[in-house]
Amino acid sequence: MDDENTVFIGSKETMNYVMAVLEQFNRGSDEIVIKARGRAISKAVDVAEITKNRFMEAADITNIFTDTEELDDEGGGSTNVSSIEITMENQE
Amino acid sequence: MDDENTVFIGSKETMNYVMAVLEQFNRGSDEIVIKARGRAISKAVDVAEITKNRFMEAADITNIFTDTEELDDEGGGSTNVSSIEITMENQE
Repeated sequence: MDDENTVFIGSKETMNYVMAVLEQFNRGSDEIVIKARGRAISKAVDVAEITKNRFMEAADITNIFTDTEELDDEGGGSTNVSSIEITMENQE
Repeated sequence: MDDENTVFIGSKETMNYVMAVLEQFNRGSDEIVIKARGRAISKAVDVAEITKNRFMEAADITNIFTDTEELDDEGGGSTNVSSIEITMENQE
């Protein structure tokens, strides 16, 4: 899967990302992946749930994967941060 | 699964919940479920990842389920909130 089918969750409003997901599906993607790290993880789950429940019943969550990523911090050390990948598929 | 094997994530420090998970496994549970709603979802993922990576390699995340719950609000209406359930199993 290339980045074209991926929606990265950042600091914008939740609905921006819901729209991005819907846009990907409308372009014909059968599968999109929602990715987030740290505190944005909660928002990633919101995006998937809102997409499915309010806008696109055919979009199912087919896989959820969590991981830990090591990020370099300013002091030259590193911090661990949790990440999530939520795969949604168009079942139509 | 009864609530005995469930760890509910709230507003305490992350490590409190990691300890609660480890305690459940130490009591002999083969499977525990970490549950969270709303913003605590990110913390639930942290708890699972920290448990697995730092304390208990035999504890694998075997299932992640998300849902939307309807909560009554003060005005007599209701608000939708996302929830997560992370199942961890002792593979030893």
